[in-house]
Amino acid sequence: MKKHNFSAGPSILANEVFEKASLSVKELNNSGLSLIEISHRSKDFVKIMEEARQLSLELLNLNSDDFTSLFLQGGASTQFLMIAYNFLKNKAGYINTGAWSVKAMKEAKLFGSVDEIASSQDKNFNYIPKDYKIDGSPDYLHITSNNTIFGTQFHSFPVTDSDLFADMSSDIFCRNIDYSKFSLIYAGAQKNLGAAGTTLVVIKKNLLEKICREVPSMLNYKIHFEKDSMFNTPPVFAVYTCLLSLRWLLENGGIDEIEKKNNLKSKLLYDEIDRNSQFKGFANIDDRSIMNATFNLVNDSNKDLFEKMASEQNISGINGHRSVGGYRASIYNAMPYESIDVLVQLMKKFENIV
Amino acid sequence: MKKHNFSAGPSILANEVFEKASLSVKELNNSGLSLIEISHRSKDFVKIMEEARQLSLELLNLNSDDFTSLFLQGGASTQFLMIAYNFLKNKAGYINTGAWSVKAMKEAKLFGSVDEIASSQDKNFNYIPKDYKIDGSPDYLHITSNNTIFGTQFHSFPVTDSDLFADMSSDIFCRNIDYSKFSLIYAGAQKNLGAAGTTLVVIKKNLLEKICREVPSMLNYKIHFEKDSMFNTPPVFAVYTCLLSLRWLLENGGIDEIEKKNNLKSKLLYDEIDRNSQFKGFANIDDRSIMNATFNLVNDSNKDLFEKMASEQNISGINGHRSVGGYRASIYNAMPYESIDVLVQLMKKFENIV
Repeated sequence: MKKHNFSAGPSILANEVFEKASLSVKELNNSGLSLIEISHRSKDFVKIMEEARQLSLELLNLNSDDFTSLFLQGGASTQFLMIAYNFLKNKAGYINTGAWSVKAMKEAKLFGSVDEIASSQDKNFNYIPKDYKIDGSPDYLHITSNNTIFGTQFHSFPVTDSDLFADMSSDIFCRNIDYSKFSLIYAGAQKNLGAAGTTLVVIKKNLLEKICREVPSMLNYKIHFEKDSMFNTPPVFAVYTCLLSLRWLLENGGIDEIEKKNNLKSKLLYDEIDRNSQFKGFANIDDRSIMNATFNLVNDSNKDLFEKMASEQNISGINGHRSVGGYRASIYNAMPYESIDVLVQLMKKFENIV
Repeated sequence: MKKHNFSAGPSILANEVFEKASLSVKELNNSGLSLIEISHRSKDFVKIMEEARQLSLELLNLNSDDFTSLFLQGGASTQFLMIAYNFLKNKAGYINTGAWSVKAMKEAKLFGSVDEIASSQDKNFNYIPKDYKIDGSPDYLHITSNNTIFGTQFHSFPVTDSDLFADMSSDIFCRNIDYSKFSLIYAGAQKNLGAAGTTLVVIKKNLLEKICREVPSMLNYKIHFEKDSMFNTPPVFAVYTCLLSLRWLLENGGIDEIEKKNNLKSKLLYDEIDRNSQFKGFANIDDRSIMNATFNLVNDSNKDLFEKMASEQNISGINGHRSVGGYRASIYNAMPYESIDVLVQLMKKFENIV
């Protein structure tokens, strides 16, 4: 029996992604070869890479004259250092909305000065800072668009003349925003996109002219761009799962449709969190994420009971991060409404018996 | 019909690796979840990572008190810069046996002085340099143990007081050598080990005390060691395929047995290359690789015929690298003797009809 997988990442993907990815490991497109034994320079794989790159831009409604997309390795954690290595000349601005922003700032400090423009640390990152002033002209302004741990999400974005960079690891492709406002977007695949092991980087082409020091090849965005995201052997399986997810998204109406579904899904869950006397939401209501809902028990002594009941319903992966406690339901693009309904019905049942 | 896959990498793995990896993408161990949707912090995945790390050391006959193993991202190309970032304080020595050594030196030069101790460039890298003197005490001495492109392989190793580093991407686990002589070994998975997307790094623990500058977290070997190779989300699928290959190797007698098979396999092919009037080997006989056999046609005008005949035999991936031309048969651990025999019979048939 398939579980209801609320894991924060690696996380649920569409069933057909699992099916097709599984088949490809046996044999890719009747080629007599497994996906993972063919040359990355073969026509079959070059097509996969190119379609994945192109489809990423298309779904984000970005023009391929002005933007390019890359599938790199090393996760968002490698992007934390790459953005600074390439683009931090003097000072960069960071908005601190939690653990991922903190890690990004830590790596950037090795390359230049980091200005923490705003922070929500005073309230354990349960909100998105809104009133702040950007001094001077930082080389770039960096945000974490969605904080997976605290369940917060930017619903409007900083207005700045600097290049705007965003870690969108946990909410890319979830909603229709103007992605062209960003000069650089990165996202580890293992949430809304594909298997862990690749990172989508979307980059404004003219940003590539601003690389400010000599950067090792594997960390240099321009080299990856010039080599069509194949400077070295790419993580073929992870890229293929991304392509399968992107195709699934396109076939299901693209970002417009998925956003409607995500809004319905998150409303179903947040309405219950707010209604149910036994739970309270963690994040500030205005800043709630439609990808990760964080909530706590009103009475912690009922913890074991709730978790036992959840397990009986085949609910998996809802434990909160240790810095928030309680629960976190990650409800990414591929999470069906029905699974959230199972959780909501459970919460109602739980309220009735405690 | 399954092809005879002589691809240089990504390349053939054991059939059971494809089968089990494919199943795991549908569902891992009856868990109700796909391998690629479970948390990397889950018990199931932590077990996979730990077993893969442990088994790597065990098969290389390395003591886990003195050595550790990591599964990182970014391929050998990332190791080229990481080794220098971490360990190149003043000067490092490199033996240049072809394209991969050249790339490794290029990245190292960003961090310090590079001494090319010996090179076989004068003969298009068709041999392994043997007479050279190591001046001073370089921070480390770096070799490429097997050159995939030119089909050469070190059969004895430099004697040095410096830490010896080796890129073993295309020949790790193929033969029984004293791996403990090396302070650092790295190998992209996609040849003898697993799916592209992870790199095995084997490192002498006391080397970790020699990190010579402040290194970004994702590039810092000590941080990866301290975090049990899980500083960030690892490439779960690629690591799992490595574990499956390592188990397959263990079940088939480990390195001792595979070396015997590799010797028989490469002898079968090289004997035919040397006997057949229509082919000539590229690499110096004493330096031939048991993993990648490079050879050319005596008469290039027969190229189309040979390739047509090869294709009819379901032989795939034998075209040589552009810098050598001709053919390259990569005969990694998982390549069956039978496939090489198909190639040898074809070469005989070809000789008879031209």
